Amino acid sequence: MTDFSSITGLLAEQAIELPSWAFGNSGTRFRVFPQAGVPRDPFEKITDAAKVNELTGLAPTVALHIPWDKVDDYGKLREHAEGLGVGLGTINSNTFQDQAYKLGSLASSDAAVRRQAIDHHFECIDIMNRTGSSDLKIWLADGTNYPGQDDMRARQDRLADSLGQIYARIGDSQRLVLEYKFFEPAFYHTDVPDWGTSYAQVAALGEKAFVCLDTGHHAPGTNIEFIVMQLLRLGKLGSFDFNSRFYADDDLIVGAADPFQLFRILVEVVRGGGYGKDSGVAFMLDQCHNIEKKIPGQIRSVLNVQEMTARALLIDRDALGAAQQAGDVLGANDVLMDAFYTDVRPALAEWRESRGLPANPMRAYAESGYQAKIEAERVGGDQAGWGA
Amino acid sequence: MTDFSSITGLLAEQAIELPSWAFGNSGTRFRVFPQAGVPRDPFEKITDAAKVNELTGLAPTVALHIPWDKVDDYGKLREHAEGLGVGLGTINSNTFQDQAYKLGSLASSDAAVRRQAIDHHFECIDIMNRTGSSDLKIWLADGTNYPGQDDMRARQDRLADSLGQIYARIGDSQRLVLEYKFFEPAFYHTDVPDWGTSYAQVAALGEKAFVCLDTGHHAPGTNIEFIVMQLLRLGKLGSFDFNSRFYADDDLIVGAADPFQLFRILVEVVRGGGYGKDSGVAFMLDQCHNIEKKIPGQIRSVLNVQEMTARALLIDRDALGAAQQAGDVLGANDVLMDAFYTDVRPALAEWRESRGLPANPMRAYAESGYQAKIEAERVGGDQAGWGA
Amino acid sequence: MTDFSSITGLLAEQAIELPSWAFGNSGTRFRVFPQAGVPRDPFEKITDAAKVNELTGLAPTVALHIPWDKVDDYGKLREHAEGLGVGLGTINSNTFQDQAYKLGSLASSDAAVRRQAIDHHFECIDIMNRTGSSDLKIWLADGTNYPGQDDMRARQDRLADSLGQIYARIGDSQRLVLEYKFFEPAFYHTDVPDWGTSYAQVAALGEKAFVCLDTGHHAPGTNIEFIVMQLLRLGKLGSFDFNSRFYADDDLIVGAADPFQLFRILVEVVRGGGYGKDSGVAFMLDQCHNIEKKIPGQIRSVLNVQEMTARALLIDRDALGAAQQAGDVLGANDVLMDAFYTDVRPALAEWRESRGLPANPMRAYAESGYQAKIEAERVGGDQAGWGA
Amino acid sequence: MTDFSSITGLLAEQAIELPSWAFGNSGTRFRVFPQAGVPRDPFEKITDAAKVNELTGLAPTVALHIPWDKVDDYGKLREHAEGLGVGLGTINSNTFQDQAYKLGSLASSDAAVRRQAIDHHFECIDIMNRTGSSDLKIWLADGTNYPGQDDMRARQDRLADSLGQIYARIGDSQRLVLEYKFFEPAFYHTDVPDWGTSYAQVAALGEKAFVCLDTGHHAPGTNIEFIVMQLLRLGKLGSFDFNSRFYADDDLIVGAADPFQLFRILVEVVRGGGYGKDSGVAFMLDQCHNIEKKIPGQIRSVLNVQEMTARALLIDRDALGAAQQAGDVLGANDVLMDAFYTDVRPALAEWRESRGLPANPMRAYAESGYQAKIEAERVGGDQAGWGA
Repeated sequence: MTDFSSITGLLAEQAIELPSWAFGNSGTRFRVFPQAGVPRDPFEKITDAAKVNELTGLAPTVALHIPWDKVDDYGKLREHAEGLGVGLGTINSNTFQDQAYKLGSLASSDAAVRRQAIDHHFECIDIMNRTGSSDLKIWLADGTNYPGQDDMRARQDRLADSLGQIYARIGDSQRLVLEYKFFEPAFYHTDVPDWGTSYAQVAALGEKAFVCLDTGHHAPGTNIEFIVMQLLRLGKLGSFDFNSRFYADDDLIVGAADPFQLFRILVEVVRGGGYGKDSGVAFMLDQCHNIEKKIPGQIRSVLNVQEMTARALLIDRDALGAAQQAGDVLGANDVLMDAFYTDVRPALAEWRESRGLPANPMRAYAESGYQAKIEAERVGGDQAGWGA
Repeated sequence: MTDFSSITGLLAEQAIELPSWAFGNSGTRFRVFPQAGVPRDPFEKITDAAKVNELTGLAPTVALHIPWDKVDDYGKLREHAEGLGVGLGTINSNTFQDQAYKLGSLASSDAAVRRQAIDHHFECIDIMNRTGSSDLKIWLADGTNYPGQDDMRARQDRLADSLGQIYARIGDSQRLVLEYKFFEPAFYHTDVPDWGTSYAQVAALGEKAFVCLDTGHHAPGTNIEFIVMQLLRLGKLGSFDFNSRFYADDDLIVGAADPFQLFRILVEVVRGGGYGKDSGVAFMLDQCHNIEKKIPGQIRSVLNVQEMTARALLIDRDALGAAQQAGDVLGANDVLMDAFYTDVRPALAEWRESRGLPANPMRAYAESGYQAKIEAERVGGDQAGWGA
Repeated sequence: MTDFSSITGLLAEQAIELPSWAFGNSGTRFRVFPQAGVPRDPFEKITDAAKVNELTGLAPTVALHIPWDKVDDYGKLREHAEGLGVGLGTINSNTFQDQAYKLGSLASSDAAVRRQAIDHHFECIDIMNRTGSSDLKIWLADGTNYPGQDDMRARQDRLADSLGQIYARIGDSQRLVLEYKFFEPAFYHTDVPDWGTSYAQVAALGEKAFVCLDTGHHAPGTNIEFIVMQLLRLGKLGSFDFNSRFYADDDLIVGAADPFQLFRILVEVVRGGGYGKDSGVAFMLDQCHNIEKKIPGQIRSVLNVQEMTARALLIDRDALGAAQQAGDVLGANDVLMDAFYTDVRPALAEWRESRGLPANPMRAYAESGYQAKIEAERVGGDQAGWGA
Repeated sequence: MTDFSSITGLLAEQAIELPSWAFGNSGTRFRVFPQAGVPRDPFEKITDAAKVNELTGLAPTVALHIPWDKVDDYGKLREHAEGLGVGLGTINSNTFQDQAYKLGSLASSDAAVRRQAIDHHFECIDIMNRTGSSDLKIWLADGTNYPGQDDMRARQDRLADSLGQIYARIGDSQRLVLEYKFFEPAFYHTDVPDWGTSYAQVAALGEKAFVCLDTGHHAPGTNIEFIVMQLLRLGKLGSFDFNSRFYADDDLIVGAADPFQLFRILVEVVRGGGYGKDSGVAFMLDQCHNIEKKIPGQIRSVLNVQEMTARALLIDRDALGAAQQAGDVLGANDVLMDAFYTDVRPALAEWRESRGLPANPMRAYAESGYQAKIEAERVGGDQAGWGA
């Protein structure tokens, strides 16, 4: 296996973007359980995100969601972030919470609704220009609940047209990233349900359009790392939304449900040139901490990604290639498993300390008093959540 | 195939219980789209349910959900219902919306939380005594999101203990019906995830405890009619929660996603003695009309059940049995399919008219002016939904 | 709803290709149950296929599988077919039964194995030139069973190279059609697992390369009609392999597992211009009659496709479009369901008779004495199956 | 975390039964790829199994499959095994490969077929009496492919009757263990499809009847460790068939597809008293090494079980219980993950050496020359496989 010392340079390049909304309340259709200390505005969300970065060195940017994170003065928000050592990242649009979007947004059969949805994306691009964000991420809730409810083909054509109008506004150093999702909130058909559809749509747009792969957005049994490989091969993997799942889009902590799957995904990322500063592939989290505390939930998540990345980097690629070429099924698998079963935590703790970071960020957070502080201070006001 | 005239007696026995909550607003974790005309209180919900029964003759009772349908005077609610030609049915408890239930209710590791949840069921039984309801239906949201979060075995034992306390209060002419669900809102483990667990629990309770089968609560690919057969064979099928799904617990209109599956389920119900007045099996709907209008959604649903029941009753059981005994695979399947492909709608329309009901209840509703009336009248106040 | 008389012209265009291998023995990994009367050679297979066409008028061509259907003289085979009123259709290659293909064929890491697999396809094209077949269909069993066993990315690149070499031999009036499959016989990764991969590969080849959609080759819950719509929209739907499934690639009779799904698929086919003589979309069956008799199994299958096509054609497209445009969820769904629930069998029987075909082909076959005849005559010799 | 030295006593109790058929050829319905050196008879299978035990100390018994492992003199087979340091274990019946079983065996509608299947089990019990085996394991392939093909309820009743007759012959120190399976080779319904059905059937038989849980026999997404917990709680978990899967019943090496799932299963085994000499729970493998070498495939498998057992035993149960009781979601999960991420391989290697076993059994096998020897010696004869 590769020596740990030889991968520290690559590990130092790791950057995972945190979603502002992970710090707000979230839940299921049955109940949102509010938590003490939850931010009341985008500034407080960024403060919490910065705490995660402070303790891990892994989370230098924060993704915003519009309109949840709308503020009067984005310059001020940016300064606030930079003052805490983090930057503003991807702008996420929202096409699912306005009453107008009941039957769809960019794919709606109603021209006025499409207009509203397109204009919303123009607003997002305006915000990007002010925040300095480079990526516009579009996750579409569009779909139908009943067969026949709408014409899927016409919707796909309208979607292409809407995306084209948005893409035309994307700046030279900006990107449009289109996410796909197997189902939910639509229960019969979803307008961008799989990587093939997202790929076909962004390929038609042009060079600044990419696919976003959310690890929780696939049919049961889907080999996700294969899709990672394919999108990298096709030059169209723009970003990841990391999380994990046992059933549907559970939005659990990345690596919690199937750590070996996360490892295999990162193996393909590294193999396909999707890792590191110049890869063009953004690592983001998209999770819901419905019952666990949010800040340690985020810390745990970035550590999980880091630990699995380390294992993926440790693979003895020469030995692997030799076994593969020899048709040695068990031998090749063993090389992979050897890296997976390696306990990288002690080496990472040591390396973290050498960079002035706490050896154990989870413990450091628990001992920091930060949680007690925000729970005491953030009383009154409206807690942030998906609705606002 | 059996002659239609020979099944009208059985069709006349059909009774489908409507859920009060289907008339209120519902949605996904992303958005609840409120609809015009939605009831503001339990009385208005029952008024809407009675309209469904008036037009179809199929829905003589309404299930209540506590606390959503709590009123000061249940006698008054009962009179209201009876004045409109319907009765009050199953009482559904709620163990998922109180902040105390964040980590579980009847299976919680916190004795005080279990006490609260048990007491809530005592209250439900008190209400049953006042409404004259015979069934207490328990759907438990209990479960965990992360491996290790709690001890599954201890939870199962605590659940058994809690159910035992509740069962001890069930009256001689009452029943406890325990629903199971594959997942949601818990994403790692659910305390009553499958029919086997529900069966084991109710078998331990005694003769007045039964299983409730919600058609949307199974793993992908599950043969639901097999479970229907097995529970009838074991004498433990208490009731159905009908709805349909393409993916998870989508709660779509029953029969909308897979009409052939609904047919096969009803074939086993009829085969196993689960149909008709004295069967002891209650037919209920449990659906969410997130984007379609609620009252016609319910009308469509009960008609779907009726139409499929008619097809199931029309099967030529002699021909089927003969082909099965002969090992004639295609012949036996053909007998079944012959009934499924029969268009029973004209005969049902005629029969409906012969009983003083509209031939086409969907059209009758559309032409009744009822929707316009409630949309005009029900302005102001708090619309009913899952939260209240 | 549209009048039946207005769709008879379109129905007359229906042509469904039968797979020669459906007449041979098949089974599961646990057991192949041989059946009496099964063909011993390609000539007898075609004789059986012609019987299906004789009784239904729906199956004018037979697909061949190489090497299972290799003969010394393809001209003679063609004459045999034409003498029975049918033609030879698609040539299917086989890259899964030679010992050399244990770890893959066109994607293998072994250059000699790839050479063998490519040469096999050259041979198939030679056969096409002799049989007059226009389509070369490639279903690849390639994949791996264990993570790390081989490099997925390198395999994809090698696959592209191999396909390119084969494509270069495809004649001007010929087509290469690439099938995808979710899994089996590979259990970790499959080299062409989804429509997106097949699409990306054939798009890179050129205008004579298309995707083949096998209705049993998807992840649980996949909306197949969406893929039909998308491939038609992208101009890359080459053909269907029809069958049905409850679990994996069960290869049951088309329409047997989920008739409503078959209907929805055909609705999108018609909607997207995929139906009829000039559509460029080939309808084929790909099924295994493991326990039911093979010839009536094929008759039942083509009738199922015909009946569902009739229902799809009967949809009142104007009413559907109006309801969709109005956002009338239940109304639009009702228009679709009205066609689905229509019993087209009597009208089809009548129309069949008007064309000199038996009203009930299943019964006509049973009464024809053909089955008894082949069971008596085809004694001795090696029954056809997947192995030979 | 618990100290490794404190678990070595428990590790020494580990015994994993090997399936004789894992050493023979196996494959998919598409192809069985024969391998060099494969045994030609039950004696050679046991020789190979003994080699696995020699190198690992983990596999003291071998399961037999009747009729595949029928011999004239079971005493001689037993002596052969004991001479190599292993014993004969579970007897597995076969109700899927006789032509008579085409439409079922113990559940068949044909009394003569049921008689044949029951008599086959009587023969198995006779063999158990001669081999000294204590467990009769029944996996039933019974089911149907098409709705209506047979009466599921009648089949279930006939199955209960057949099992009752077999159970009546089971000796006082013997057990009947009934396996369940989600699907395959039946594609519409399976007569014992889930743990609930197996549980209901064995509970009706009596105290010597138990459930066998095959880890590859569940619907997608099923929480298997929950079933382990429940069956242990109900006192009915008789044995495991270990293997792993990505899709269906892939029969891959245990732990290969989802190592974390294997860990969670073993955590529940330990928690519920299912581990160790007196637990009454038998650990068996049931796998197919279709493309990898069989003996190292088995070695890898038992090592995977051992390594995961070690991790499960290492859990700090006190810390876990404290975090669970405190409702500390992340803390409790962390305790579990800490054990999972621990690399137990060095400690196991050391411990193995201390017991006179090779530190690395995989390497020891590779260097032993055994593979070359059997490949050279086992030439000619009929290789063992599923058919013989």
